[in-house]
Amino acid sequence: MVDQMRFREAMSRLAAAVNIVTTDGAAGRHGFTASAVCSVTADPPTLLVCMNRSLRAYESFAQNGVLAVNVLPGSDQDLSALFAGGAREMVERFASGKWRTLSTGSPILESAAVSFDCRISEMKDVGSHAVLFCEVLDAAWSTVPEALVYFRRGYHHLIDQPEA
Amino acid sequence: MVDQMRFREAMSRLAAAVNIVTTDGAAGRHGFTASAVCSVTADPPTLLVCMNRSLRAYESFAQNGVLAVNVLPGSDQDLSALFAGGAREMVERFASGKWRTLSTGSPILESAAVSFDCRISEMKDVGSHAVLFCEVLDAAWSTVPEALVYFRRGYHHLIDQPEA
Repeated sequence: MVDQMRFREAMSRLAAAVNIVTTDGAAGRHGFTASAVCSVTADPPTLLVCMNRSLRAYESFAQNGVLAVNVLPGSDQDLSALFAGGAREMVERFASGKWRTLSTGSPILESAAVSFDCRISEMKDVGSHAVLFCEVLDAAWSTVPEALVYFRRGYHHLIDQPEA
Repeated sequence: MVDQMRFREAMSRLAAAVNIVTTDGAAGRHGFTASAVCSVTADPPTLLVCMNRSLRAYESFAQNGVLAVNVLPGSDQDLSALFAGGAREMVERFASGKWRTLSTGSPILESAAVSFDCRISEMKDVGSHAVLFCEVLDAAWSTVPEALVYFRRGYHHLIDQPEA
């Protein structure tokens, strides 16, 4: 197998959207920044999130059984840093941004490019991480044609400009 | 659950890198364009690929048990279209681009931003798709600081410019 440092260097070249993944319920409100989110199938509507099992919030996500994926626009780069560890306490993280809920009660970011409200249908451990398979119950999006993308260890703002 | 059209509309707003996923072996040489690729964990080095089980090549990937993920730079947009169905026959697809191999024998694109040479360790069916969990045996990358990104149903070229 490739060594971990080489794996990380290679992975830094796979561009990815930046997302804030949130939950709320009996086990409390939590959120973290994640780039390892991807679409699985439209039949039935399913996405997945990879989560480090050593994160403090891991058990809370498992217990609540619901989550939201909030895909960030370029203007929310500061929020990404906050939820990536810039703020340690959840109350401090959620003090920034405007939040609402859809059907599961997971925090939905009003400024998100798009948000997915999900029920966790299955969790699968792979090494240090868990893959959370999620049924998408609802989705909401804004008209902002801009994405925040992480690539080569830096943030980039991608703007969808209609061709002339 | 959200309906499939709404799910697809929402998913078009999740920016993603564009990759050509390839295999070779007893079941033949195959390749297709995929955006649903993500890092799972560095411990042990693992990535995943989501693949529609109705693709002709699906059984060949399963039988060969190996694959490569070739992450495209902006300059390979034409290759993306070809492997997304622009060319139906595999021989026609692989006639474009320069290919070599690493340890598994899966086709590695010389111009790729980064390539991951993998052994499929597990396959998990989810609805119409399968999630292929892959151990990363080797990785190779170029110095081209440019990524091809799919966002809002269009291609975008993301360039990593060092800050002034």
